[in-house]
Order: sequence, then structure tokens, then C-alpha cells
Amino acid sequence: MALKKKPVTGMKDILPKEMEIRDYLIAMIKDTYKSYGFVDIETPCVEHLENLTSKQGGDNEKLIFKILKRGEKLKLESAKTEEDVADGGLRYDLTLPLARFYANHMSELPAPFKALQIGSVWRADRPQKGRYRQFTQCDIDILGEAGPLSEVELILATTGMLGKIGFSNFTLCINDREILRAMAAYSGFKDEDFDGVCIILDKLDKIGEDKVAKELMELGYTTENTKKYLELFKEISPNEEGIAYLKEKLAGSINTKILDRLSFIITSVAAAKECEFKIKFDPTMVRGQSYYTGTIFEITMDDFGGSVAGGGRYDKMIGKFTGLDTPACGFSIGFERIVMILLEQDYQIPSQGIKTAYLLDKDLLDENVLKVLAKAKKERELGKTVLVANMKKNKKFQKEQLAEEGYEAIIDCYNDSIDHINEN
Amino acid sequence: MALKKKPVTGMKDILPKEMEIRDYLIAMIKDTYKSYGFVDIETPCVEHLENLTSKQGGDNEKLIFKILKRGEKLKLESAKTEEDVADGGLRYDLTLPLARFYANHMSELPAPFKALQIGSVWRADRPQKGRYRQFTQCDIDILGEAGPLSEVELILATTGMLGKIGFSNFTLCINDREILRAMAAYSGFKDEDFDGVCIILDKLDKIGEDKVAKELMELGYTTENTKKYLELFKEISPNEEGIAYLKEKLAGSINTKILDRLSFIITSVAAAKECEFKIKFDPTMVRGQSYYTGTIFEITMDDFGGSVAGGGRYDKMIGKFTGLDTPACGFSIGFERIVMILLEQDYQIPSQGIKTAYLLDKDLLDENVLKVLAKAKKERELGKTVLVANMKKNKKFQKEQLAEEGYEAIIDCYNDSIDHINEN
Repeated sequence: MALKKKPVTGMKDILPKEMEIRDYLIAMIKDTYKSYGFVDIETPCVEHLENLTSKQGGDNEKLIFKILKRGEKLKLESAKTEEDVADGGLRYDLTLPLARFYANHMSELPAPFKALQIGSVWRADRPQKGRYRQFTQCDIDILGEAGPLSEVELILATTGMLGKIGFSNFTLCINDREILRAMAAYSGFKDEDFDGVCIILDKLDKIGEDKVAKELMELGYTTENTKKYLELFKEISPNEEGIAYLKEKLAGSINTKILDRLSFIITSVAAAKECEFKIKFDPTMVRGQSYYTGTIFEITMDDFGGSVAGGGRYDKMIGKFTGLDTPACGFSIGFERIVMILLEQDYQIPSQGIKTAYLLDKDLLDENVLKVLAKAKKERELGKTVLVANMKKNKKFQKEQLAEEGYEAIIDCYNDSIDHINEN
Repeated sequence: MALKKKPVTGMKDILPKEMEIRDYLIAMIKDTYKSYGFVDIETPCVEHLENLTSKQGGDNEKLIFKILKRGEKLKLESAKTEEDVADGGLRYDLTLPLARFYANHMSELPAPFKALQIGSVWRADRPQKGRYRQFTQCDIDILGEAGPLSEVELILATTGMLGKIGFSNFTLCINDREILRAMAAYSGFKDEDFDGVCIILDKLDKIGEDKVAKELMELGYTTENTKKYLELFKEISPNEEGIAYLKEKLAGSINTKILDRLSFIITSVAAAKECEFKIKFDPTMVRGQSYYTGTIFEITMDDFGGSVAGGGRYDKMIGKFTGLDTPACGFSIGFERIVMILLEQDYQIPSQGIKTAYLLDKDLLDENVLKVLAKAKKERELGKTVLVANMKKNKKFQKEQLAEEGYEAIIDCYNDSIDHINEN
């Protein structure tokens, strides 16, 4: 029986054209992030199933590709649950493995630790256009630094990188989970309902204010509470004025240092940013992951109708491994989205120099092949790309194909022309 | 309960120091291979279990990490075998996925197709020092070219790359499966016993001639056969003379074009090689994988007692997917071994320029933090690495740590020194 040619459901083969863009983007990302002092690390793609299902991953925990136990550990006859037959899983993000990594190696790492990770993650999502079950994530995180300098550096590095690949017209939206919490408290919502309130508020864009109000009331709150809450958002300008306004308004419900902190982040980013973009204080922004504990941020692009990067502070995750809370803050780029945008733009990678192809006639004498190889060697030593290939019957088609691959100089090698070639 | 800090059994976290070497090596590999016209591709890490267990992978098929079926497809109650509960597996090499990739995309690819792949593979091997269950492979392959130009280019590219990272004193060993076959036939072994003869011959280095002879006789052959066979190896010099000798000796048992082909490869490589190394015709070399059909080669290092790269021609694998045989030849570098050697040598990566760290005093005014950020921005624009961090109580220790990470300029930032810093 013939073997299967297609990749497994929901995953994709990557062809040379896309790989060129990906490679270029990765090099750009690494260069930029390293200039901010971030250093590369890597964790295994397989994680302990217990870690992956520890309620740090939200809905992603339902999408884990699980790894079958091996050898004697696998007892199929008596197996009742998936946990009986699986002991590992493919990581669904890079944050949880980073927390494990940090817990494991803390004593060997600088403090604070500025980590850069680029790697594949897997989610057994329903396959759909442009979304795959294996995709690349690209994260920077600062671990062990509680101050707002973390947020500033993460934002400067990420926006700087986007500027370098020519992105403009994007907006950094920023908020703090503690502001969300204080606004809910101020409007009369109980702290124990806070997570539920966030889940509903997160739908504001999608379902609109009326339906959000309806859902909030279903939690058992009055029209008055709900109205007070939703009106408050309208009173806030999306900038430092808004923050100043909240400082007065929420005086009793919030530690005002949190608002000063956010102000400092916005001022610093505005002053030191590497490229032009808008900064927006967005008090309605929730961000999905339940592990965030403080500042949250994302980058949206007007031209693209979606977020191209997101992150925030998660000061409680590392403590799940070590028993001791460690401040942590990260920013993750939507790598696959950016690749898609660059491909759609037909992005031109800066030229790598002239590419030469030598086509060998089928009757070429061995000694003349050696001459071509020697010539190719010399040119490669000068940093050029040189292809040596056998001439095909349909030489015209072969040359068209080579031109499409970017070969500008295509040279036919016959026995009677070889010395001429070698002189050039 | 606290989560697990260690990576899963047999896999490892990679720390910044090793990552730096790996990144550097990958950049070097890509540069060199691209200068030969190889282009990057990628396949998913998960493959169809049917493909992985199709007898192309030899012993590796016993070491597959299998992926549990998901949702309704998983029927634990009625499951009898691993195939009932698993539908995918992590790839154990990059060659089988490449064959699938080529079969799937042939019409979109240039012919011949020169592929470069760097990626993780997984084998559930018994954990042992220096060998991990997830490791990086790095392969180049030429698909759709039957001529010896494939072998020449693969060998030149691979040896050239090793030269660039400073490897010398290595040997390229080369042989052809058809020579092995002809030598066995010449000595009276039946073709149907050829695979068995290869498996025994492959142990020559480990168990010695006497035991090999004993095992060959256990296949049902006489002392005379066995002696004729083993003596023949001794008569062959490890160079072109040896090939010429075989051309006479095996006249009736082999297509002499195979010997001419091997001669051409050796001559061409010797003439066009980018760095110094020895070339050895080794008629005893078998190479494990059963899929090889012609030329086989590997690179051994005297200083290291093992192979650092290996490959060969496998003209029958793609046909398993397409029904139509396609010539194919590849060379795979032992990436993890090379990383280990470089780490042991304490390999120094060429300097990336001066790294500067600004340490902010805890009482630094916000406006002065902005001045440091602006200064850092300017320096990063010039391509420098700049770290901005909060000053710690134990500043001496902090500076020692930074020096270890390669920060040469470490600058304390106090309110009364800030203008001085900014003038520099």
C-alpha cells in the first residue's frame, strides 16, 4: 500500500518561499531582542502531562496532543482514562515550560533573567484556514524583576522589532488587571465574581453593551450596578488623562501606585520608542489567559483587524513550581500572523548578492567538470551562492525555473566553452 | 501539589551558553549550505503512524513516541493494540518526512530539488550520558538527480561547513552498497543472504574478524567462502588504487560504471574541497540504514572516535509514496555531537561588539530613567547590545555576574551622574 503523502490533519509542510520569510523574520527577531540583552533558551517540546493540565493554560488544556506511555508502563487492558495511557504531552505554549525551566535552573541564571524563546507549540484545535495545529511562538520574558522597567523593555523591544520589518500604523493597547478589579469593586461587584465579570466584559467588542449588561445582571447584580460599571468606561479617555481621572474616581478602591506605574510605562515607551505607533490606555481590555496578575498589553494593527502580539505580567506562575512567587512579565509575537502578512504583502527580503548557476552539458568531460567545480568553489569563498547542476533536455524551461528561484547568472558549460568560463 | 521542575525523562532544557553555540552553528550551516543552492524546508514534527512504521526506519521504528487519538476517535474500552489508540507519532528522522514532502509537492519544486532541513527528532531510546530523546538533526538532500554530481556537492558542502568551524583532521569514508553486494557475490554468497551478510560485516570493528567469520558460516556458508570474502577486503588499498583493483577482480560480478562513478566522486571532491581532510575508500563500510541503495559515506574524526556525519543514496524511498522511483541522496550532520565538541573545546564565537549595561539606582527620578532609555535606544540603533537593569543591593555580585555574561561596560546611573552619562 502506498504511504500517505499529505501531512497529518491540521499541520502543514513549509515550502522554500515561506521558509525564506520565516528565516529572515527569525534572524530579525533574534537580532533585535539580543540587542536588549535577552538570551536564547530552549525547552523540550514534550512536557509532563501533570504540568500541562495544572490549570495554568485555560482552554488550551483541552487541546493537548498527548503522548502514549511506552513499554511496560502502558497497560491497555486495565486503562480507564487518558491519564492511564499517556504520561506526556506536546506543549501548547512557551510560558508554562519557561516557568518550569526557571524553577529548575534559577541558581544558574542571572537575576533578573531575560529569556528569548522561539519554538513550535501544538494545539488540537478545529482545523481552519490560516490556523494550524503546529505553529511557531516567539516570546520574550523578564523573570525576577517586579518593577515597571520589565514592561517598558518588553514593549520597546517588541515594537522596535515590528518597526524594523516595516510595520507602522499599529497601536499598543495597555491596561492593568488591578484596574479592572478596582473598577468592578467600585461599581459594586464582589471580588469573588471578578473572574466571571472579566469573562463577560471580554465579549464587549463581539456582543455589544446591551448583551454584556444582560449577562452581568444574570450574575445577580442590579441594573444600577451594571449601569454604573459600563458608564464608567465611557468616562475614561484612552490616555494619561484617563489614568489621572481614575486616580480620583477610584481613590478608595485601588492602590494609586498601580496607576502611577501604568503612567510611567506609557511615558517611558512614548519617549524611547524606536518607531512610530499609537499608545492607548484601554480599560476594557481583559486578555484571555487567567494567569495574568498585573499589566496586560497587546498590539493591534488597523490594517489587519487583529492582534499581532500580546502579553502581560504573571507573578504567580513560577510559585506553582517553587512554592515561592517570582515576578514575571512576557510579550509574545503572533509569529504566524506576521509571516502571513509579509507573504500577502509579497515582502522583498534584502538581496543576498548575485546567485549563479552553472549547467553542465551531458557530454562534459570529467576534467572539465572539475574546472567548473573549482570555479564554483572560488565564488562560494567570496560569499556567493553557486548552483552546479546537470543541463536538462528542456533547457529553456530549466532556465525559467532557475530565474524564478533568483538565479541571475545562468551559464551553459560545454567542452568547447569551458576555458572561456574559467577565465572570467 | 507542586508541579514538576525537571524536564521529562531523557530530554533536556538548553541554557543560554549552549544556545549561543547552537545558534551560531545553525547560522554557519545555513550560510554554507545556501551558498551551494540548498533551500530550507520544514515538515511537521508529527507524522502519520502508518508512514513511520513502514519499515523505512529500521530499529528507530521501535523507538517512536506515539500520539494519542483525540475526541471520539479514541475508544479506550475496546482498544487492544497501540495502533487502536494512537494515530500519529513524533518523527524519528528527517529523511522519511522529506520523502513524503517531496511526493506531496513535487510539481511545485525545482528539479533536482536541493533541500536543507534543520529540526528536532525524537527517539524513545534508553537515556544515557550525552544522548537525549529529543535532538536536532541537520540534513541536506538532493532529490531527482541520479548522477554523481549529487554526491560531490553533498560532500563538498558538508566538509566545507566543518572546515569553517575549525574542524580538521577528519576523514571522509566512502563506499557503495553495490560494491558490497558484488564482493559478497564474488565470494559465493547468495543475493538473498546479502542483507544478513551486511549486518554481520557491519560488526567487523566491534567483534573482529574471527567472530565475523563464525557468524558468516552460521548462515550456511563454507570456510572457503568466508575466507575468500574476508581476504578480499585485505587486498584492497583504501584509495583509487583499491577501486582499480576491484575493477579487475570483480569484472564479472559488477557493473564497472559503479566503480568509475565512485572514482569520479573521489577525484572531484579531492580537487574542489574547501578545506583539508583525508578521503578513504572503505569497502568494509556498511552503514546501518537498510534504505541505502548506492553510494554511502560518513565523516569520522580521529580526535573524537566517532562519526560526525553520515549519508548516502536512497533511490527507492520516494517510490514508496509515489509509486515511481526517484533518485535521492542525502548527508546528515551529527549536530548534537558537533555542539558537544565545540562546548568541550570552549569554542569562542567571534565577538558581537561591545555589550553595555546601565544599572539604575533605586532612587533614580523618572525623568532620569527616560534619559537612560533614550541613550540605550541610540546605542541599540548603532547595533550594540544594551541592558538596562535595576541596581541590586549586592552591586559587586551583580557586576561580576554581568561581566560573566560578557558585559564589558557597566555603568552606574545616579541622579547626580546622569547628565555626565548622557554626554558620552
